[in-house]
Amino acid sequence: MRVLVSGGAGYIGSHTVVQLVAAGHDVVIVDSFANSKPAVIGRLEALTGRHLPVHAFDLTDRDKTERLFADEAFDAVIHFAGLKAVGESAQIPLEYYENNLDSTFSLVRAMRRHGVNLLVFSSSATVYGEHAPLPYREDYAPLQSSSPYGRTKVMIEHVLSDVAAADPQMRVALLRYFNPVGAHASGTIGEDPQGIPNNLMPFIAQVAVGRRDKLTVFGDDYPTADGTCERDYIHVEDLAAGHVAALNKLASTQEPVSIWNLGTGQGTSVMEMLHAFERAVGRELPYDVGPRRAGDQPQSWADPAKANAELGWQTCKTIDDMCADTWRWQSANPTGYEG
Amino acid sequence: MRVLVSGGAGYIGSHTVVQLVAAGHDVVIVDSFANSKPAVIGRLEALTGRHLPVHAFDLTDRDKTERLFADEAFDAVIHFAGLKAVGESAQIPLEYYENNLDSTFSLVRAMRRHGVNLLVFSSSATVYGEHAPLPYREDYAPLQSSSPYGRTKVMIEHVLSDVAAADPQMRVALLRYFNPVGAHASGTIGEDPQGIPNNLMPFIAQVAVGRRDKLTVFGDDYPTADGTCERDYIHVEDLAAGHVAALNKLASTQEPVSIWNLGTGQGTSVMEMLHAFERAVGRELPYDVGPRRAGDQPQSWADPAKANAELGWQTCKTIDDMCADTWRWQSANPTGYEG
Repeated sequence: MRVLVSGGAGYIGSHTVVQLVAAGHDVVIVDSFANSKPAVIGRLEALTGRHLPVHAFDLTDRDKTERLFADEAFDAVIHFAGLKAVGESAQIPLEYYENNLDSTFSLVRAMRRHGVNLLVFSSSATVYGEHAPLPYREDYAPLQSSSPYGRTKVMIEHVLSDVAAADPQMRVALLRYFNPVGAHASGTIGEDPQGIPNNLMPFIAQVAVGRRDKLTVFGDDYPTADGTCERDYIHVEDLAAGHVAALNKLASTQEPVSIWNLGTGQGTSVMEMLHAFERAVGRELPYDVGPRRAGDQPQSWADPAKANAELGWQTCKTIDDMCADTWRWQSANPTGYEG
Repeated sequence: MRVLVSGGAGYIGSHTVVQLVAAGHDVVIVDSFANSKPAVIGRLEALTGRHLPVHAFDLTDRDKTERLFADEAFDAVIHFAGLKAVGESAQIPLEYYENNLDSTFSLVRAMRRHGVNLLVFSSSATVYGEHAPLPYREDYAPLQSSSPYGRTKVMIEHVLSDVAAADPQMRVALLRYFNPVGAHASGTIGEDPQGIPNNLMPFIAQVAVGRRDKLTVFGDDYPTADGTCERDYIHVEDLAAGHVAALNKLASTQEPVSIWNLGTGQGTSVMEMLHAFERAVGRELPYDVGPRRAGDQPQSWADPAKANAELGWQTCKTIDDMCADTWRWQSANPTGYEG
């Protein structure tokens, strides 16, 4: 298939591009580079041995989006593009809603106008909100989220579900990611957050490489085994494989909307992850314990049974793999793509 | 105050314009006339004795919206504009999401850029979804709705709440309307739906005036006193007064977001409303009973205590007032504004 990958220069997008090419798909990237670096493209071309066409614009630009679809024929779209910082989304919510919704509107409108019917969307476990029972199952309702960022994911799930329900040709996959970590085994692509990382793994990696003094653990008095929050970490390579599997499934399913959790089904605590990273690095890493962070759930993990059964997909990588691969990327690229 | 009224030529907008002028406010109307008639403006000018400036464009046009705010100074905005047909929203959901969200984004962006901080938004009891206990209270969560139309209301409530939470100057009122009916006592303005009415009251009125053969009651086997659905009908004049009260309250409140139910707190069944309308007309009206309509709740009514207490507002009009006023409008304007 010829696949348009929006946000293809981002963390999950870039790893998915590599696997799409390996699976025999033609890939075209559209990315605004607002939160990603042009340098990733050269790395992707080296990894894939292909020239990768890149369109550098923001999908909220309807004219450019329309022109792209008029100029090129796509079989499918994987839509990663979007603003994604939970904390920032509470500071500038209008920008989050406008950007994430308008880019989706623009993309879907162009898809419909040009007969592109397969869409894979980057959703998130955040849509399960605060009250879903563990493990999270795809049939839980109603969706809700505690941040404007998360609410854009809820809203886009509703928009795409309703659009697909009204259009007999359209097939939409809503992929609910748990906590993506890790990097490509080559160490040439990986997560490169701007500013202070919001997520645990890149923060630990930056401590290990000397960019941050120490890790602050946000609360150790949660009702969990060691008192720190537990999350379902998924290796980005497993996650990328889930996208390739979902794309293949979309081409044959009769379901207008398919929702799949992409997670391992296992929770790992902050302290467990820190210690696993210490094993990967070969030394202890400094940390202290701070207060709880507003909006953090004590525990979150997937029931991945639906994706396992329907996609013939499952995660393979361990927590130690995640740490080793993250460390390989971070130590080879201590300041990310801008060396 | 100088108040911009979006959708000011529509059913609820037009009645609110009359009461805003009566309360001493200056009104500027912006309306695309996609679902309203230019003829209403002359009627409003006759009722108010004022020239009413009208800007005929769609708020999704950001350039025109920006220019309007650059050219004129407003103290507040009342935002009625939006697509509102429940059934149609399931057929063309993308249009509903794009129109209702993008017009709100455009409006809020212009407000913030030009320091306009007071916003009253037309929400709906539809946001209480299918599981809220009766009577509906403003603190119920999570919001959900069974149609794309209703989901645009839920989404916009979230967007405006988050925007207000992030901006210490902004004051937002989310007014959750129950079932607006009736017309101005003059009989010169009223509800003029395009095509087949989706709502009970204009349908009954069109049967009474001879434009429809008979009313079809959608289900008479609901678990209610007479088996037909019960709704909280509110006279549009009471509803308009609620907007004036909310606007005044916004000017003094310190709450970033205020949510008020605008309803009577009383349920009236389809058959009760039909018989009340028969009394207003002075003859029996033909009806038959059809199957239930998908998505209809058996019963829905407000707890209006919060609006009563905080706004010093309450409904005054009876069901018989609603029918008499609707009939005066409908009989004087059998084909609506286009005579």
